[in-house]
Amino acid sequence: MGPPTSRAYEIADPGLAAAGADRIAWAAGQMPVLAQIGDRFAAERPLEGMRIAACLHVTAETAVLVRTLAGGGAVVALCSANPLATQDEVAAALAVGDGVEVRARHGEGLDEYARHIAALAASKPQITLDDGADLLVALHQPAAGTGGAGTGAAGPGGAGAGATPAGAAALIGATEETATGLLRLRRMHERGALACPVVAVNEARTERALNDRHGTGQSALDGIVRATNVLLTGHTLVVLGYGWAGQGVAERARGAGAAVIVCEIDPLRALEARMAGYEVMPAIAAAQRGDVFVTVTGSRGVLRAEHFARMGDGAVLANAGHFDVEIDIQGLVALATGPPRRVRPLVDQYTLPDGRRLNLLASGRVVNLAAAEGHPAAVMDVSFALQALAVEALVIRPERLAPGVHPVPEEIDREVGRLKLAALGVEIDAPTADQLDYRRSWGAET
Amino acid sequence: MGPPTSRAYEIADPGLAAAGADRIAWAAGQMPVLAQIGDRFAAERPLEGMRIAACLHVTAETAVLVRTLAGGGAVVALCSANPLATQDEVAAALAVGDGVEVRARHGEGLDEYARHIAALAASKPQITLDDGADLLVALHQPAAGTGGAGTGAAGPGGAGAGATPAGAAALIGATEETATGLLRLRRMHERGALACPVVAVNEARTERALNDRHGTGQSALDGIVRATNVLLTGHTLVVLGYGWAGQGVAERARGAGAAVIVCEIDPLRALEARMAGYEVMPAIAAAQRGDVFVTVTGSRGVLRAEHFARMGDGAVLANAGHFDVEIDIQGLVALATGPPRRVRPLVDQYTLPDGRRLNLLASGRVVNLAAAEGHPAAVMDVSFALQALAVEALVIRPERLAPGVHPVPEEIDREVGRLKLAALGVEIDAPTADQLDYRRSWGAET
Amino acid sequence: MGPPTSRAYEIADPGLAAAGADRIAWAAGQMPVLAQIGDRFAAERPLEGMRIAACLHVTAETAVLVRTLAGGGAVVALCSANPLATQDEVAAALAVGDGVEVRARHGEGLDEYARHIAALAASKPQITLDDGADLLVALHQPAAGTGGAGTGAAGPGGAGAGATPAGAAALIGATEETATGLLRLRRMHERGALACPVVAVNEARTERALNDRHGTGQSALDGIVRATNVLLTGHTLVVLGYGWAGQGVAERARGAGAAVIVCEIDPLRALEARMAGYEVMPAIAAAQRGDVFVTVTGSRGVLRAEHFARMGDGAVLANAGHFDVEIDIQGLVALATGPPRRVRPLVDQYTLPDGRRLNLLASGRVVNLAAAEGHPAAVMDVSFALQALAVEALVIRPERLAPGVHPVPEEIDREVGRLKLAALGVEIDAPTADQLDYRRSWGAET
Amino acid sequence: MGPPTSRAYEIADPGLAAAGADRIAWAAGQMPVLAQIGDRFAAERPLEGMRIAACLHVTAETAVLVRTLAGGGAVVALCSANPLATQDEVAAALAVGDGVEVRARHGEGLDEYARHIAALAASKPQITLDDGADLLVALHQPAAGTGGAGTGAAGPGGAGAGATPAGAAALIGATEETATGLLRLRRMHERGALACPVVAVNEARTERALNDRHGTGQSALDGIVRATNVLLTGHTLVVLGYGWAGQGVAERARGAGAAVIVCEIDPLRALEARMAGYEVMPAIAAAQRGDVFVTVTGSRGVLRAEHFARMGDGAVLANAGHFDVEIDIQGLVALATGPPRRVRPLVDQYTLPDGRRLNLLASGRVVNLAAAEGHPAAVMDVSFALQALAVEALVIRPERLAPGVHPVPEEIDREVGRLKLAALGVEIDAPTADQLDYRRSWGAET
Repeated sequence: MGPPTSRAYEIADPGLAAAGADRIAWAAGQMPVLAQIGDRFAAERPLEGMRIAACLHVTAETAVLVRTLAGGGAVVALCSANPLATQDEVAAALAVGDGVEVRARHGEGLDEYARHIAALAASKPQITLDDGADLLVALHQPAAGTGGAGTGAAGPGGAGAGATPAGAAALIGATEETATGLLRLRRMHERGALACPVVAVNEARTERALNDRHGTGQSALDGIVRATNVLLTGHTLVVLGYGWAGQGVAERARGAGAAVIVCEIDPLRALEARMAGYEVMPAIAAAQRGDVFVTVTGSRGVLRAEHFARMGDGAVLANAGHFDVEIDIQGLVALATGPPRRVRPLVDQYTLPDGRRLNLLASGRVVNLAAAEGHPAAVMDVSFALQALAVEALVIRPERLAPGVHPVPEEIDREVGRLKLAALGVEIDAPTADQLDYRRSWGAET
Repeated sequence: MGPPTSRAYEIADPGLAAAGADRIAWAAGQMPVLAQIGDRFAAERPLEGMRIAACLHVTAETAVLVRTLAGGGAVVALCSANPLATQDEVAAALAVGDGVEVRARHGEGLDEYARHIAALAASKPQITLDDGADLLVALHQPAAGTGGAGTGAAGPGGAGAGATPAGAAALIGATEETATGLLRLRRMHERGALACPVVAVNEARTERALNDRHGTGQSALDGIVRATNVLLTGHTLVVLGYGWAGQGVAERARGAGAAVIVCEIDPLRALEARMAGYEVMPAIAAAQRGDVFVTVTGSRGVLRAEHFARMGDGAVLANAGHFDVEIDIQGLVALATGPPRRVRPLVDQYTLPDGRRLNLLASGRVVNLAAAEGHPAAVMDVSFALQALAVEALVIRPERLAPGVHPVPEEIDREVGRLKLAALGVEIDAPTADQLDYRRSWGAET
Repeated sequence: MGPPTSRAYEIADPGLAAAGADRIAWAAGQMPVLAQIGDRFAAERPLEGMRIAACLHVTAETAVLVRTLAGGGAVVALCSANPLATQDEVAAALAVGDGVEVRARHGEGLDEYARHIAALAASKPQITLDDGADLLVALHQPAAGTGGAGTGAAGPGGAGAGATPAGAAALIGATEETATGLLRLRRMHERGALACPVVAVNEARTERALNDRHGTGQSALDGIVRATNVLLTGHTLVVLGYGWAGQGVAERARGAGAAVIVCEIDPLRALEARMAGYEVMPAIAAAQRGDVFVTVTGSRGVLRAEHFARMGDGAVLANAGHFDVEIDIQGLVALATGPPRRVRPLVDQYTLPDGRRLNLLASGRVVNLAAAEGHPAAVMDVSFALQALAVEALVIRPERLAPGVHPVPEEIDREVGRLKLAALGVEIDAPTADQLDYRRSWGAET
Repeated sequence: MGPPTSRAYEIADPGLAAAGADRIAWAAGQMPVLAQIGDRFAAERPLEGMRIAACLHVTAETAVLVRTLAGGGAVVALCSANPLATQDEVAAALAVGDGVEVRARHGEGLDEYARHIAALAASKPQITLDDGADLLVALHQPAAGTGGAGTGAAGPGGAGAGATPAGAAALIGATEETATGLLRLRRMHERGALACPVVAVNEARTERALNDRHGTGQSALDGIVRATNVLLTGHTLVVLGYGWAGQGVAERARGAGAAVIVCEIDPLRALEARMAGYEVMPAIAAAQRGDVFVTVTGSRGVLRAEHFARMGDGAVLANAGHFDVEIDIQGLVALATGPPRRVRPLVDQYTLPDGRRLNLLASGRVVNLAAAEGHPAAVMDVSFALQALAVEALVIRPERLAPGVHPVPEEIDREVGRLKLAALGVEIDAPTADQLDYRRSWGAET
């Protein structure tokens, strides 16, 4: 591969490239799984000539993924799935230093965002990587691929069932990273409108265990402590929702010395929480007991007026769910005596008529990202390793997958597990012939 | 229901009935989930007149299940799935006090065991409950149902595909409690020989979490401590296998103060163990580090000569897997300077040529049962609640299930979770309409 | 040392000697700290010719201590501090096999107990080892040392201040293992009546950490599980008292999956419990929440009628404190509708007028000993290593200690720590000269 | 009390007062123990007219202490014990808003620092509060109290034994917060030079448990995660030193999912670490295993060339001890191929000849403060409550304490425990008469 071909980019400031290169280098050092894959890709070039378009958070970790794909032979274009998450220096480093087509600017508006998506779609990518499905959906629009921003008016036939839209004609496959994106794509598929296979990266087993559980567990508490400097030991932390992410938050909070209460509406999950040693109770009862509240349910209005009314003075309210709808801020505003005071950079304090003060963190936005750095690179390492191997699988065996949403193949999940163990310096036994014969694996239940 | 009808039984000593009744009463007090189901069954009589045959461990907890089924209207017959587990006083209480057809005697031989199975099969049960599938398999034998013991010689056609065997003619369905039994039944089904639906009770989610994980976790360590009186704190415990049961053993051992090492050949499970904070390494390396070793893999020869050769003086070897094949006793015998000394009631001490002593517990049999009491009644409560509701489901909606092995319906799993929470005195919220609308459950991933 | 000299003994059955020898051998294998000391004693013979009398629990672990002292050159006599704890086969092995003067019989009455004490006192020991101070107090009686049992009528002068009583004339020093014994001895010393130095073995730092905390923590829960087969996971365990032993019980209960509530009347300890993540509340509130209650306070009537009245059906009551006064059994009897039913071998079930059943374990006696085996040998290893080194210190430098109760010298505590680490196979760094110079130890607070 | 009297101050910018007031208000809300004391002080005015000089970190938490003392009637002057910790807006708020004599400026040089100390000394305080003893030592200088900076040349007699120096003439007593300060003062006392009693606040039991253990535990890990965004789960963290602070770091690291190794040169502490379930080994062995290293020993050169040489690529080095001497940076420089690269704001990366990269955090300075916010306000709440009550005790009963270093009276420790429990909303039982009689407290050991 020669020097990077100069290509188009739309970024904030090319002068930030050197700073961005440092930041990417640090992230790369934290992502040994992707590094192992990158070494192999560089040797084998499995993506030679493949056109890949990615609409992801433009961060240092994403840059490592982009380099891995490019190192495997692909021509990669990148825009931003979340303008507030864009690191301009990283965008600069990729654009100027690596010659990647980057179209992303921190704080870009909706119009600019749409224009960037459209520009990427216009290049007729063969593979897309999405974080919310915007890019892949755009490729399914009738007018997509004509290159014009704002030309999204659907003609007759729309994105419904029928002939493959022009924008999707070259598509071999796609990956998606979020539950929300998968929901959109599954609905598209139900009405026969999805033109290619999509790999559900965030449903992989390694992803669930690392990203949802351990990543969220550490970063949610990290965000709360940074925002408030509260001492968790000795206090009571209430976790609302006991899915993978809620399990992680509860586990880390207990590990930090807090007494933990879990609220959960699903009886099986509630039972699992109780069996893990937590107190389990309705939210209305927990409201009176908690010092810190963390919502992580994927649902709306989980903490609302009836709960605020019962909380003690100084209660801290944080959301670690994807959307900012889990804490009913309108309900808080309605109860309060006036507008909130900003008592610390990310803390809005609402005062109730009787003088109690409730502290809302980061305006109810996901506290992991808003008050901390989101998932550690070690977590993104696994997510993006899954992405890289899913892309490779789509490329090298396109015959295997029909249009629709597909799980990450188990052998990829297993391979990422293997590489992650190697990265951690952990060796394990191979099964003996006797074991293979007697029963497939040690782990099999008795 | 009038006084119990006197029926046939084959038990060790009817005079033990009073002692058995006490023991059952204690167990019943520990099984509030089954009690709630029992109250409903007594009111609704969903099993009225149904003939149920059960081949289970004849213990006080099983007796509570039998009473629950009988209280629901069924006529229940019981034999023993494991002669060494039979509690003769419980058998007496059920037979004499409840008028149940019990055919079980502690320590009964294989002939007697076969005779008991055959006697139950002869009554043409409509529902069977199995712990290893012996009873259901017997019902599928050509000669089964003729009432004679030892007449198992298969006629032409055997138990292969084809017409329903006479013994199975009345069968509505069955439940099975063990992985081993399910393996047999699935193979039967693959060759078209299974005549009825079978519910895989031990694969239910509540069962996995409670029985495999928490039940085994506590009882395996309990067995080891009873057998040796070893102090776990400060010592290193090696868990071989990180399935559900291995997770439970590791978690409880860490909770007891031990430093825990996990050995696992599956990379995903190995990664999960590492992410849970355990050291993970090959067994050969762990052999040099451990003080106590627990196998729980479902595999053969997990600990063998190469590991024994590296263990330190005083190492303790225990198996918590179902079969006694996980520790290679022949390898231990071959290494030792002579026959083992029985240094405590359940401890055989093997001396190696250099003087090191290795202590094998319970001859490598499952230490939970051999050295402790097996699962606590609170665990069996959930297992048997699943059994009772699975039986009810088979009876009241027989049209739903085709021959084959079926999972426990999710609504039953959920109902058992709900009842268990109630039994623990744990209340949870119902979802709001808003939540139901926005997303199906709080626990949904974000 | 030639073959054991035959000496007097009073034991249950000399024929049990072989069984006792096996049991002692197992215990010895679990006591590597004492083994290291024993090896040195055998080489150095620091106790050559010293007359030592011990009034301790006559168990296999004590036998290992006796052999260690004898191996160091001492002539040891042994009687039992608790007739119910006496292991007759161990008494036989020591008497017949080792030629030790043993006077102990399981279940011996108070008269026989007094006679045994008197016989040991009559031999004018130079060192005593006590577990409750009975032997040392007897040596301070005016008539002690005359060899007659039951001649304890104090002549003029009694055991008050003044001349050394005849029985204590030969005394170089003593050790004491219990808080109760130390209380008696400190009171004697306050009135000037203690004739020799006493080393307070149970106040050593290694003893506190291992015996009180980890020993009690594991064995108390072990006793509760053996007595009831209750599943701790998912249940709420209430620990009353948060001293060293209470900390151990709370830590192990949490480690076993229980939700733990601590009740404590000392604000500093209560705060430490809360900071350790436990819920802390008054006993009356905890009574309504707990499933299992464990008293470990050293106080009287900790659980009483007002608490019983609020407990839920099936509550389990256990005492892990030294005396059986912490649970007010009379209060329980008064509340109950009738005498308790013995529902399991160590479980008395009291029924309240509204039908709730409370389950008292081991009649309120210390559950660690009554329902399990008491402290593991690994714990006694440390206690008895402290004993052995304290005895040696008394012998080889008698000039150092005046009459009174003395702490275990810090260098002995440290040496036992060092030996225990070696026994566990744990290596640590020696301090560098730089570190010694800069500050005395790494562990020093900053 | 009228409006604040305008007094002298030397601060960076009076215009910051409003921002400072907000910051103090937030801190006050996190310090409910001090608030309870402040309410009582305001009512009782126990410090009426007392001149108090404090040389402490000028932070929002300290401001709350200053207000508490002033509210009790004292006239307080404040300078900074650490110019880098000074929050200029807090200094402004105290000076302008509260009329406190504040002499502190962020980043002030040594001369200015000495001038501020001298100015406070010149006002002949009756009580001093110190964080390193500089102010109290200055008051003992012959020339102290003359008001001149830089006049510290000791005349004949120096600060040795003899007549009270003029500066100390008014002194009733002092408090000291650091081990280093106490060391200085104890040495002064040994040579007869200490003129007043000093209360060792940091040796109080509540202080040890909260500040050293839980405060350092949380904030050290917080600093490491903020500096690196490392995922602790799945990695190995090595804690060097197992004093109170090391215990806290180890406990929190385990709670965060790390595998924890402890290095400790004191055998008793090493044993306690092992008994707590940690791996314990020499630092040279841990060097090869660890991913993250935290020194917290109070010693010099704990991590040095021999350890660096064995660490893996990417190792993270952090110090949580008071001084920046625990990691031998010169040794690191000597090993590295060149000067470090600043790869993240607080991360210096040293590259070894074979390519391994070691990441030093915050130049080896205490990571809690350098990379996070130091102890949470909830921790300082307890420290400063001890300070306030110690000052009150010195004032209202000056007869009780002779010159020398004194522990915090136990009743103050207990009172702070009581107030902290109240602040946490935790109720506990009062002892019953029966309990008081039978034994002094529940917590007493058995």
